[in-house]
Amino acid sequence: MSPVFPPLANKLGELKSSAIRDLLKLTSRADIIGLAGGLPDADLMPRERLAKAAEGALSDNSCLQYTESPGWPALRAVLAARESAKLGRTVPVEEVFVTHGSQQALSLLAEVLLDPGALVIVEDPAYVGALQVFRAAGARIVAVPLDREGMRTDLLAELLARGERPAFVHTVSNFHNPGGVTMSPARRRELAELADAHGFWVIEDDPYGELWFDNPAPAPVATYSRNVIRLSSSSKILSPALRVGWLVAPDPVCRAVELLKQGADLCGSALTHQIAAELLADEAWLTAHIDTVRAAYGARAKALVHAFRARFGDRATCTDASGGMFVWADFTDGTDTEALLPKALDAGVAYVPGSAFAVDGGYRNSMRMCFTTSEAATLEQAIDRLARAAQSTQL
Amino acid sequence: MSPVFPPLANKLGELKSSAIRDLLKLTSRADIIGLAGGLPDADLMPRERLAKAAEGALSDNSCLQYTESPGWPALRAVLAARESAKLGRTVPVEEVFVTHGSQQALSLLAEVLLDPGALVIVEDPAYVGALQVFRAAGARIVAVPLDREGMRTDLLAELLARGERPAFVHTVSNFHNPGGVTMSPARRRELAELADAHGFWVIEDDPYGELWFDNPAPAPVATYSRNVIRLSSSSKILSPALRVGWLVAPDPVCRAVELLKQGADLCGSALTHQIAAELLADEAWLTAHIDTVRAAYGARAKALVHAFRARFGDRATCTDASGGMFVWADFTDGTDTEALLPKALDAGVAYVPGSAFAVDGGYRNSMRMCFTTSEAATLEQAIDRLARAAQSTQL
Repeated sequence: MSPVFPPLANKLGELKSSAIRDLLKLTSRADIIGLAGGLPDADLMPRERLAKAAEGALSDNSCLQYTESPGWPALRAVLAARESAKLGRTVPVEEVFVTHGSQQALSLLAEVLLDPGALVIVEDPAYVGALQVFRAAGARIVAVPLDREGMRTDLLAELLARGERPAFVHTVSNFHNPGGVTMSPARRRELAELADAHGFWVIEDDPYGELWFDNPAPAPVATYSRNVIRLSSSSKILSPALRVGWLVAPDPVCRAVELLKQGADLCGSALTHQIAAELLADEAWLTAHIDTVRAAYGARAKALVHAFRARFGDRATCTDASGGMFVWADFTDGTDTEALLPKALDAGVAYVPGSAFAVDGGYRNSMRMCFTTSEAATLEQAIDRLARAAQSTQL
Repeated sequence: MSPVFPPLANKLGELKSSAIRDLLKLTSRADIIGLAGGLPDADLMPRERLAKAAEGALSDNSCLQYTESPGWPALRAVLAARESAKLGRTVPVEEVFVTHGSQQALSLLAEVLLDPGALVIVEDPAYVGALQVFRAAGARIVAVPLDREGMRTDLLAELLARGERPAFVHTVSNFHNPGGVTMSPARRRELAELADAHGFWVIEDDPYGELWFDNPAPAPVATYSRNVIRLSSSSKILSPALRVGWLVAPDPVCRAVELLKQGADLCGSALTHQIAAELLADEAWLTAHIDTVRAAYGARAKALVHAFRARFGDRATCTDASGGMFVWADFTDGTDTEALLPKALDAGVAYVPGSAFAVDGGYRNSMRMCFTTSEAATLEQAIDRLARAAQSTQL
């Protein structure tokens, strides 16, 4: 007889595990080439430089104590300097707040900006880690589709003209997860103008901006409006184990986040903050390191896209992979990617069906592929396997 | 003209910064002896052992990637073994969940266990980090006073007999912050029996249990009931910079916490988890290390208590400081500790007035003193200064 425990909160009924996380548990077999995950390549992480910085940080006891809720001061200073360079204006340290990965920035901002029933506008397909948080906060969620230039700001303008009043609009402006696209400069300006005109926040979620392959990402949305809260992270350029993300926002937002951070987990780790500060401040080293990651990911992305287009021809289209970690593909021949998945796993390749990223259903003929953790030849083999699986569904 | 930003959530109006944090900002002057803080002594943290473990962890890339939401498996295994020894039963790894400090365990549990308006029973005076989280969750809070044997379980029984039905009861069972007392074995058993009889959870918040001075802490409340969720942390025995806390709870609680952790911050740091795992698994070293901390804190506590009693005689009483980090004092001569504070600061000593820990007001003649970060002679000087300040208020 299993014991009868006291009840849990009723509201938990609304929560569910990420479909992608559940899928990843099924697809971790060694014989499967994983395009499903969304992890940076651990082999490209700067282990020796991290070890040296850890040794330095641990040469005295100052990094062992609790630190301030907004983060280790030296880390905030270097982040403020880097953001100032990106935005072309002086970002004061007070407007930089370090979080436990940028996922924590999303969850704290959901608390700071949303009353129950508030409207949140997201992109479709959407970053599921954000969707999960906004849903848990009791938000009403309306989606605006992506196209090759990013969020369809014309459709956002229509929503606003119909009287919709969002608390904020969430966008992954660069090298979208899962959509693979980057918002054009004109759309950035339009989004910023709408935010100013209608008085809503924009959360510009930018973990991939430095991982460009051929051309740097356009100037951030935040260069066009002060109503923009920028989020980024060291996870994709250094290591997720630092758990160093950050938000850059006007002072009232940062002070509200600070109150909530105290209750959420008091503060971050002075040790990993100090390590991150050292690596982010070493500009010459950092530029060379990120160049190495970009070159590796760029070669993998091109191999994946080339193989996909060669194998599928006009049966499917896929994004160009100009940066980041993901390629998005749409089958034009009616292939159902949920139905295809078991056959793909049998053939030895995993991906995430597009439906996992749909806000209100759809994307049944789409998929997300992550190219970061395999070499070009392996990615080509993955596409061969995928093509075999897709072939068999047609018979 | 300062810019007009979009609004923040209305519910933020209910939140306020911890009075203690605000006080600490005022009392960090170098000429003030700080009894107000609640920090462990960084000089006693095992820096060299931490550095060696960091070097080991960073000798390959496995600690650089994202880790599982419930924590690095090897850390959960060692925590399960240590808890099994403490509880006298086998605690499965699935029932151990690593959090970003035990403050995160509190905030995740508030989400998992509380619907808005749910009843939470806390101790009075209360741990303010818990109060802050329960209030933010919209709980109705009822306080049960402490005496020298810990929570007045007879008064809890009366509340229950009157029909009150808490979602959970929160207790700092060992070396209470701020109250300095430890719950007696008889009270532990009674609390557990009430939890079983009335079907509520007990959160046994135990960050200080290993810091006993003369006698080990009694067996945990969790040895008497399966309705107990235990919380602890490496912050007070190793270093807060690891940000390694944990909860031990039945499987349904851990699985609900896992869903919320994904949204809150995805996962902890594989690097600091691996470091914590190595140090916690090295039993011989750990025992010796904790003995050193206990001996230092014990000597400081005794010096503080001795000086306080010598100086204040029957004008005040204070707890015995049998472990942990805090002494609680009650003035019996009507001294108002809020009114005394500015004079104490002038005299060069800081403490936290009892009112900062009151759930529904009160404790105006009480104060909390932390003895961890000064040597005995300095603590004696602090009490001299306090006595001078208290003397002047009488004139």
